[in-house]
Amino acid sequence: MSAPLANVITLGVTDIEGERTFYRDLGWPLTFDSADFAVFELRGALLALFPTDKLARDANARPQTDRGGIRFAVIITVESPEQVDELAARAEQAGGTLTKPPTKPEFFDGRDAYFADPEGNYWEIAWSPDDNPVTAAARRAAGLTP
Amino acid sequence: MSAPLANVITLGVTDIEGERTFYRDLGWPLTFDSADFAVFELRGALLALFPTDKLARDANARPQTDRGGIRFAVIITVESPEQVDELAARAEQAGGTLTKPPTKPEFFDGRDAYFADPEGNYWEIAWSPDDNPVTAAARRAAGLTP
Repeated sequence: MSAPLANVITLGVTDIEGERTFYRDLGWPLTFDSADFAVFELRGALLALFPTDKLARDANARPQTDRGGIRFAVIITVESPEQVDELAARAEQAGGTLTKPPTKPEFFDGRDAYFADPEGNYWEIAWSPDDNPVTAAARRAAGLTP
Repeated sequence: MSAPLANVITLGVTDIEGERTFYRDLGWPLTFDSADFAVFELRGALLALFPTDKLARDANARPQTDRGGIRFAVIITVESPEQVDELAARAEQAGGTLTKPPTKPEFFDGRDAYFADPEGNYWEIAWSPDDNPVTAAARRAAGLTP
């Protein structure tokens, strides 16, 4: 089992209604829904929303409710520079906070932006040329290339 | 763009050497490596390690270095109940903290466990029968089913 299937990202949330609404307003498809567990099906990975107190109980850990800044991000890989701008605009319209408007990134060639959801979970929207090895690996992991 | 390719999970880390060693010791394949950006290629998704201060600068956000508990988790979907135990043991051997030893979970039918990496990032190892809709969606998102 050298490369496990590790593609369900569970966010601990305080207001599941608000978070569900935000991601629905982004246009992301809800594949499973219940009072306290909502799952969006993306390409490559799933995004699950689950109350932080239940996540903590499930994991036998303390809930971290302080959202003092960035601790992690999920990178959304788009197909063109224009799609960075389109998704950034949509995230802002849905109620997200665009902390980094679309620009040429410092750390790689291409174009990127960052937004935070209503509870301070960060997403990077990134486009880079096809020769970027991380972009190629992301497509491969998602089964999008042979 | 209703379902974007969103499958690169970037963890902000303090000690990238220690974190890289932990995930290598789990047996996960390193697909890209540099002094301050290390990427493991899993099925479905990639795991990227990046210093929290650089992630914060990149996102134009404040770094969250406090690791007071669980805020999110990534679910690893395994193929059998036995694999839950195998991976949990391996995580502990690699230096992870098994906060929830393998057991029958409260929230679904099957078997699960949780471990935290050396910097307090949580992973759930989960097995459930094939009729679990989230398991089916995870496989579909990863391109593992037609």
